[in-house]
This record gives sequence, C-alpha cells and structure tokens, in this order.
Amino acid sequence: MDILTEKFARLGCDNAPGQESLQKQATLDLRGEKLEGRSVDFSHGDVDAFEPLPGSFEAFEEGFRIGGRQAYTEYRGKDFIREDIARKLSAFTGAKIDPKKNLILTPGTQGALFLAMGSLVARGDRVAIVEPDYFANRKLVEVFDGELVPVQMNYYDNSAQAGLDLIQLENAFKAGAKLFLFSNPNNPTGAVYSRDEIVVIASLAKKYGAALLVDELYSRQIFDGREYTHLCAQEDIPENLVTIIGPSKTESLSGFRLGAAFGSEYIISRMEKLQAIVSLRAAGYCQAVYKTWFEEPEGFMEERVAAHQAIRDELVAILEEVPGVRVRPTDGGSYVFPELPELDVSIEDFAKICRQLAGVTITPGTEFGPQFTHHFRINFSQDRKASADAVRRVLTVMERYRK
Amino acid sequence: MDILTEKFARLGCDNAPGQESLQKQATLDLRGEKLEGRSVDFSHGDVDAFEPLPGSFEAFEEGFRIGGRQAYTEYRGKDFIREDIARKLSAFTGAKIDPKKNLILTPGTQGALFLAMGSLVARGDRVAIVEPDYFANRKLVEVFDGELVPVQMNYYDNSAQAGLDLIQLENAFKAGAKLFLFSNPNNPTGAVYSRDEIVVIASLAKKYGAALLVDELYSRQIFDGREYTHLCAQEDIPENLVTIIGPSKTESLSGFRLGAAFGSEYIISRMEKLQAIVSLRAAGYCQAVYKTWFEEPEGFMEERVAAHQAIRDELVAILEEVPGVRVRPTDGGSYVFPELPELDVSIEDFAKICRQLAGVTITPGTEFGPQFTHHFRINFSQDRKASADAVRRVLTVMERYRK
Repeated sequence: MDILTEKFARLGCDNAPGQESLQKQATLDLRGEKLEGRSVDFSHGDVDAFEPLPGSFEAFEEGFRIGGRQAYTEYRGKDFIREDIARKLSAFTGAKIDPKKNLILTPGTQGALFLAMGSLVARGDRVAIVEPDYFANRKLVEVFDGELVPVQMNYYDNSAQAGLDLIQLENAFKAGAKLFLFSNPNNPTGAVYSRDEIVVIASLAKKYGAALLVDELYSRQIFDGREYTHLCAQEDIPENLVTIIGPSKTESLSGFRLGAAFGSEYIISRMEKLQAIVSLRAAGYCQAVYKTWFEEPEGFMEERVAAHQAIRDELVAILEEVPGVRVRPTDGGSYVFPELPELDVSIEDFAKICRQLAGVTITPGTEFGPQFTHHFRINFSQDRKASADAVRRVLTVMERYRK
Repeated sequence: MDILTEKFARLGCDNAPGQESLQKQATLDLRGEKLEGRSVDFSHGDVDAFEPLPGSFEAFEEGFRIGGRQAYTEYRGKDFIREDIARKLSAFTGAKIDPKKNLILTPGTQGALFLAMGSLVARGDRVAIVEPDYFANRKLVEVFDGELVPVQMNYYDNSAQAGLDLIQLENAFKAGAKLFLFSNPNNPTGAVYSRDEIVVIASLAKKYGAALLVDELYSRQIFDGREYTHLCAQEDIPENLVTIIGPSKTESLSGFRLGAAFGSEYIISRMEKLQAIVSLRAAGYCQAVYKTWFEEPEGFMEERVAAHQAIRDELVAILEEVPGVRVRPTDGGSYVFPELPELDVSIEDFAKICRQLAGVTITPGTEFGPQFTHHFRINFSQDRKASADAVRRVLTVMERYRK
C-alpha cells in the first residue's frame, strides 16, 4: 500500500459528526420495535432551535451589495473587519491583538485549526493531544505526519477543574512535544480548565519552548457563573501561541463558515500563506457577517446561555437516573459525553442502531480517543423537549443491548 | 533554519494577486509624475463591472431561510445540490458523473485544487507542471513536499494550439512524474489546448499510469467560437482523473466561494476526508447559490463572453502597437500575459511602481514560473474603458524604464 493509501485509510470520516447519511447500509443486530418520536441529530447544534444571531442575514446582504471590495479581500480577511474583530476579541479575552499582525479570519474555526496545525507541525514532530478531545485534532496530527502524544484528562475526578494530567503533559514536553493543542471548554466533555491548570499549561509550554494552540470555540457559553481563564491573557505565556475562536456555535453562524485565530505574528503570517493556497479566504460576502459577533442585543447571549444550561440540567438528570450510566455535567459548551455500561455491540454499531431504531444521531466516543469505547457525544443545542425525548429513546435502546 | 521556516519562506504570497495592499513600503526608483486615471486592480476580475449571476443573492436568501438543513451539509456538499450539479456538469462536459461517487463541492475552485493535490501528492512525488501556469500550482507542489517537473508551453508558436511541449511531458512521465496538473484555458496566457494536445495528454497519462488534474475554471469563456475539448469526456482517459471547475470567474460568484471537482471515486473520497479537517464544507448557505450556475437567463452567457472578447480585442490592440511588447491574444478566459522589452527594474518592482505611478495593480510574471521575468498578467474582466486607460498608463510608465 502506498503512503497516501495508508494515510487516507486512517483518515476515515464515516463516523464523523454530520457524515452519517453517507454510511453504507451495514448489517446491524436490530432488536425490538422502532421507537416513535421526532428525529434528532445530536452530531451538531440545531440552528433552527437556536437561530443565527439577529441581523446576520442583513449584514450578509449589506456585504453583497458592497460588491467587489467585499467579494475579494486579503487572504487574512478584510482590513476594517480585522480591526473591528481584534478590538472585540481583545476586550473579550484581555489579550493584546494588533489587527495587522496578530489576527486572521478563516473559513470557520475548523479552517483556523487546520491552518494553525499546518503552520506548526512538520513531519515527525511530536504533538501533545488531550484524550478525550475534538476528533479532528487527532486527524490533523496524522495529516501533517506528526506523532501523537496523548495526555489523559481525568474529568470525573474533580468538578472544579478539567482534570488534565499535568505530569503527563510535562513528560510529553520532556519527550520533545513541540506543540500542545487543547479545547477549553473541552470537547466532548464540556469540562472547563481551572485557572491553576491554565497557568501551569502556559508555564510548562514556556519552560520547554513548546507552542500552544488553544481552541476557545465555546468560551462564550460557560454555565453556573464558573470562572473561565483565557490563557492568551496570562502574564507568563509562551512565545508561540495561537488562540482560535469563532461564531459557529453559541452564535449559530455555522452556515456562513466564519472563524478567527489570533496570536504570534509569525504563525499568523504562515497561516495566511497557507490560506492563499487552501481556499483563498473566508467567503467575502460572509465576512460582512462578522460585524454581528460580539454586538448581540442586550441580554441575548445571557438568555441563550441560560437556555442551554437548562437543557443540560434536564439531560444530565435523565442520564444520571440510569444505573451504570456516568456523566460529568457540562461546565461550558453544548456537549455531554455519557459513559455507558457494558453493551454487547460496539459503540460504533450502537450509534448506527440508534439512528435506525430511535431516529437519533449520536457520535461514537472512539472519535475522541481509541479508549472511549463506551461513550458517545451529543450536542444539546437543540429543541429542549425533542432532545430530552431523544435521549430517553437512546437509553431505551441501550437497555436492549446491555450485557 | 527548521523545515517549516524554510518551507514558509519559499511560500511567499506578497506578490500574489490580491495581496498587494499588504506589501511593505519598498524603496522604489519612481520616475516622473503620477498618471491620473481611475485605479484598476487587474489582479482579479471586477465583480462590479461584471456582476454576480442573476438570482444568486435570492438563492442565498432561500438557503438561509431553509435553516439547519442548509447550514450543515455532508462535507462533500448537500445531496440534492450534488445531484443537480452532476447533471449540469455532465451535460456541459460530456463526462459521466455519479453525484454520490464522483463529485465534491468545495470552497471555491482553489479549495478543489488544494484537496485534489493533497489527495494525490505524497512527499517526494514528482509532479509535472506547465510553465507558465497558475501560480498556486507550483506552491501546492511545495506544500505537499513534491518535486516539481516543469513542462514548457511554447504559446507563441501556433495559435491553433496551446503549444505544450509533449516531448517534455512524456519525458516527465518517464522520469516518474505521478501527476500532471494543468489549466485549460491556460492561466495566465489564455491559450486553449487543441483536441490533439488533449488526446495526447490523456493517452500519455494512461500509458505511464499517471494521474491528471485538469483545471477547467474558465472553460465557459471561450472566444472566437474556438473548439474546446474536455479531457474527461474523451474515450481514452487515465483511471486517475479529476477535473475542477467553478462559478467564480465568468459567473462572478467568487464572493460566495463555490467550486466543484469531479472524477475518480477514490480521489473524490480522499478529498472529502481532507475537507472534513480543512474547513468542513463550502459555506452551507452559499451552497444554495450553486442552483443559479448553468441556469443563466437566455443569452446571458453569450453576451458576457462577447463583452470579454471585445475587451480582449481592445487591450491586445493597444499592447501590440508598442514596439518590443509581445502578446498572444487570449483564446479563452480573462487573462492576457504580455511580455515587455528589457527594463532597468525587475518585473516585481515594475509591478509595485505601476501601483504607485499609475494606480494599476498587475501580477508579475515570475509568479507563474521563474523565467517570466519580463511578463505580467492582467485579468481584464473589468470596466472596458477603465481597463484600456489603465493598460495605456502601464505602457507609459514602462517607457520610463525601458533600457
């Protein structure tokens, strides 16, 4: 098998969120009747339940009417939009951001992540990755021929912290990891890192001369008034640091594909060089929609966060009731990552069975680390009643396969 | 210098089309007065002069109103849109395209090119590239650690063909080139490949087991009723073939970032796996705009092509009048690639000088191959009078630097 055949064989995306409709019909051990109820796709948020930011369509229209100046922008994004976003992200995070040097606008936060990884990972480089963490992180290390160094997160141990194993992280740096990539809040568990954890991560990276890539995609959706610490705004941070964020989640602007990355000038500059050959720029007219971000109507974000917290409460209560099911209540973001008791089918098959018997799409835990063979992830940014009913159906199906 | 520092040093994009506003102020040998006139940016087409396809904004609005089903699509693009586009591209090219297997919708044609190259080029692979050809082709070979094998195009020799050196192409394959990538019409010269050239390219690739990547971005804008041959529809084609095309150019939909690639099932499948980690998908709402492509009002495209042909005629006439200036009249697409006589500044500096003295942005020939030190490219999809005046100003400036 040649190099590319091998590489792409490892890069499967059939179980990735959103790809389920392309799965080939597998022979599944289907037990019992189909369960009636409204179909729910937990692989991503439902922008019909939580609609795009007010004014986003109008901002797009304005961009379209501007015409050529908006259609074609610098690869790093339109200058005046970068100025606006740099100011807002500075205010939000506390970091200093020069719109000319430290910021790039990207096609979604996925775009930011890809460009940052491509700018920091060379063949053979060791990259420390949290387990569990966002499934694409692992795949990006493979695509750039890096070597994954897993760092465990003991997220059940203590709800006041994410539970990152800081000894393992230091050992990874000692073993030569050049980069540590993590999401905060963590995807898929929704755990938020404590200030102490963030401070230690920053100082370890600095001590070992490693780069940090911090995915703060869900940092505007923190529950229970919990403290959130932006690593980029700490006193003692490494020279090589990029933070990524975007309006695709809580703000429901995913359909426009908008993201942002800010940090070290040389990394942003590399990211732009890559962007120039990857897809040129975030769609020009869509860039006009950035202006609605961090300009939400009074009380809008508070209300949206509270609505998600209420859904979390309901779903976690439903899950915790079931013997053998374990879950860490989400600190921030729209994910929960329940752990199931022993089943007599694999978690990948269980996910497919849930689509068939319950009309519910969930993401198998193994997308987030090979050891999560009893977990699944759901994105609960959904209609509240529909999602509660759907989780109940998943648990009903689960009982049919319990060992 | 480490690997990435070296790689990104080679990947400069300061002289790339559209990036000129980011150029650092260089010390230029500016001679004579500034020339008055309307600024023209020839680095790309002017979508204010040639507006986006009728109905494109309305199609976007419809997509936005559909909501979640349009915002989140399979990474390869929404199923019913693929069905529609596969049918239209089959009709246009004559190739058989199964929308489930042979087609992916991408963020612009640049996105398609990147994904295809990432799917076909492994470290050390030899890739045959035409000189001159689209500047990103060269950069993509570098990014994927391939080895560039140049194939010359003698585009002045015979206006009935593009002038590709087929002996050199065969030698490239003999030397192990695994892929040949070319644009038809050629970018930057606007030369269209003859049927004979296409047939030979296809059969050579097949004979040597090489893959072909054919960029047909401008294939709907062919002048003078010239014959255009779609390689993908020929009888004798290689197994590994991808054609890329999109509505960003003649159709002026660049601000939506829409492209398409069709061809061998395994390559399309790899491209989707990459897309899953590069930027997920072409912006969901923007995908709704594909429906306007190949559905233009009666006579619209004919009129648009004729308008471009008229601009070509005027610009070529202006250029050919000047002693020492040489140009091949464009067969298709919106580019001309004039060759200048000896100047006493470099072509890169000449381009910067034209911005300063004439308010005109041109792209230095060296972006398209290191030997094009006396050439520049312009995209003449512009207001006709403004572009004629701008070319005259460039030629006036040129006289001040003639050796």
